[in-house]
Amino acid sequence: MKQLETIRNKIKEPNPLMMQKVKERWDTLCKPIGSLGRLEEMVGRFGGIYNSVKMPKIKSAVIVMGADNGVVAEGVTQTGQEVTRQVIENMTRAGSTVCIMAKRCQADVFPVDIGINGEISCEGVMDAKIAYGTANIAKGPAMTPEEAIAAIEIGIRIIEEKKAEGYNLFATGEMGIGNTTTSSAVCSVLLKQPPALVTGRGAGLTKEALSHKIDIISQAIARNSPDPLNTFDVLTKLGGLDLAGMAGLCIGAAISRVPIFLDGFISAVAALAAVRMVPECRPYLFASHCSAEPAGKMVLEALEMEPYIYADMCLGEGTGAVIGMELAGYAVDCYSSIPSFQENGIEEYITLV
Amino acid sequence: MKQLETIRNKIKEPNPLMMQKVKERWDTLCKPIGSLGRLEEMVGRFGGIYNSVKMPKIKSAVIVMGADNGVVAEGVTQTGQEVTRQVIENMTRAGSTVCIMAKRCQADVFPVDIGINGEISCEGVMDAKIAYGTANIAKGPAMTPEEAIAAIEIGIRIIEEKKAEGYNLFATGEMGIGNTTTSSAVCSVLLKQPPALVTGRGAGLTKEALSHKIDIISQAIARNSPDPLNTFDVLTKLGGLDLAGMAGLCIGAAISRVPIFLDGFISAVAALAAVRMVPECRPYLFASHCSAEPAGKMVLEALEMEPYIYADMCLGEGTGAVIGMELAGYAVDCYSSIPSFQENGIEEYITLV
Repeated sequence: MKQLETIRNKIKEPNPLMMQKVKERWDTLCKPIGSLGRLEEMVGRFGGIYNSVKMPKIKSAVIVMGADNGVVAEGVTQTGQEVTRQVIENMTRAGSTVCIMAKRCQADVFPVDIGINGEISCEGVMDAKIAYGTANIAKGPAMTPEEAIAAIEIGIRIIEEKKAEGYNLFATGEMGIGNTTTSSAVCSVLLKQPPALVTGRGAGLTKEALSHKIDIISQAIARNSPDPLNTFDVLTKLGGLDLAGMAGLCIGAAISRVPIFLDGFISAVAALAAVRMVPECRPYLFASHCSAEPAGKMVLEALEMEPYIYADMCLGEGTGAVIGMELAGYAVDCYSSIPSFQENGIEEYITLV
Repeated sequence: MKQLETIRNKIKEPNPLMMQKVKERWDTLCKPIGSLGRLEEMVGRFGGIYNSVKMPKIKSAVIVMGADNGVVAEGVTQTGQEVTRQVIENMTRAGSTVCIMAKRCQADVFPVDIGINGEISCEGVMDAKIAYGTANIAKGPAMTPEEAIAAIEIGIRIIEEKKAEGYNLFATGEMGIGNTTTSSAVCSVLLKQPPALVTGRGAGLTKEALSHKIDIISQAIARNSPDPLNTFDVLTKLGGLDLAGMAGLCIGAAISRVPIFLDGFISAVAALAAVRMVPECRPYLFASHCSAEPAGKMVLEALEMEPYIYADMCLGEGTGAVIGMELAGYAVDCYSSIPSFQENGIEEYITLV
């Protein structure tokens, strides 16, 4: 993909000098050295990303990619596609779970119509519709390459725009009935694992329905036979507009130099696709929680990421990523507010050798 | 211990009917059933503890037990005891890490002098001094049984008083130079594990110093030969006033019917002592994070507790427990604010079978 090559050249790595300077500053703060563990590492990476030893005032945004999936026609979900639109619309009225969590975190939620099968009937949903849902992956490719590229570009553009509006910390979120099916299909091919190992009950299937879902995923992979070494091909044929859009958010975070927290399984699959296509975006991505979906942990391991939160959540919408941003808030507050040993008049008692 | 028997009779179990009713209410809320995972279970337990299907407005307190440990004379730490007092005093000026975190969580921090070796020179530290630090466990018992009982009773009383002031969610915290040594000693005996397996570098010892710390712990255990089946004896002979005070907080939470979040390794050892002495307090305790101390996970496993946060923190003061309370805030906000399927006009699409 020529476009992806161009993008790769745009991304700079987080400044290692600033990461080092942040570490040095941590070591002057009045607490046992290294005792905030991975929160210290997190702020270090922020320093490299923001290219600053001083942390900015955090302004957070959750971008929720709403899209429908043609595979729902195969009966892989318990509900119809109309719920995608309903939940996305509820987000404009602060009526969905991610909004309640984001309120506590002082983050703003931006629901996006990147491919909902229906017309949005209210204000407040970002209109970026590429199609009225994807095609049914059990019968053929989900998207055309043009649609997939457009979805990635939308993700990139949203980060750019929101950064221009002052946001400097992001979270990925999604809402799309059927998107654990597409995610498991993509995951199966990218991780070279059989569908049965990477497929879960999504929003709550019975054992029989799970077995049917696995069959449909196997059928979709056989039918489309994507090239496992060509991640863009896999994403286009088996993914969804939400997945491609979130991959775009990950890549966009790297281009715009902002940290982005991944939500659960679906977000992580999108991130894996992003990293396989544009490895340079990896240092801009932060895990949040470990999803209860069976392959949640597996995908994070493939990304060489350790989640911070283990709560068996699997709600989606960006809910777990919001808690990740909250942790970032704690980490940055500590970094910016803990007095130095000198200020506190306490001997530098504690050095880890 | 007659006192402990009397206490056990005072504790009621969290109301199972209310736990069930909370679960039923979760299942009416507009989100996939069970999708908030262990956050749902957490609120369920809160319902049983508060004896209410409706959650109260949360008012949180971190109780930080400050105490010195005679074993510091053996050179098991890198710093002198004066740092215990300095850090506890800093907490009255919002100058310590737990204060910065508690501010974000809107929790109040209450530093307690339960056994600091020195005179507190400022307002705002709760005076509950039992002794000017414990005796050196390498030479004899840390405390007399009377001192240990007094420390437990102080913990119980603080929860009672703070509950009367309107606090309904608690976190354990501690500050005491040398208290990873006492904790590892208690842990070693209670878990029947060799000191080398349950001892870490605390605030940052060298490899040689760690080896010396392990020797001192072995010596303390040999010298005091506490009865492993008598937890009070183990706590009295090898523990500290902070550990006994935190065990009191755990027991007090059960008596006063409030949930309490444990911080890391030291808090968890105190909680293990509490649960071994007063098993009825167990359902009132909540893990928060998994400490980077080597035995942190082991003690939680002995308590049959799963931490929510893995960030390799080991700062103490209650810092990890504050993040635990923050998670509780998210869980309660969701429970209290997510509209029902009916309110949202969305079919009850999702039932986990």
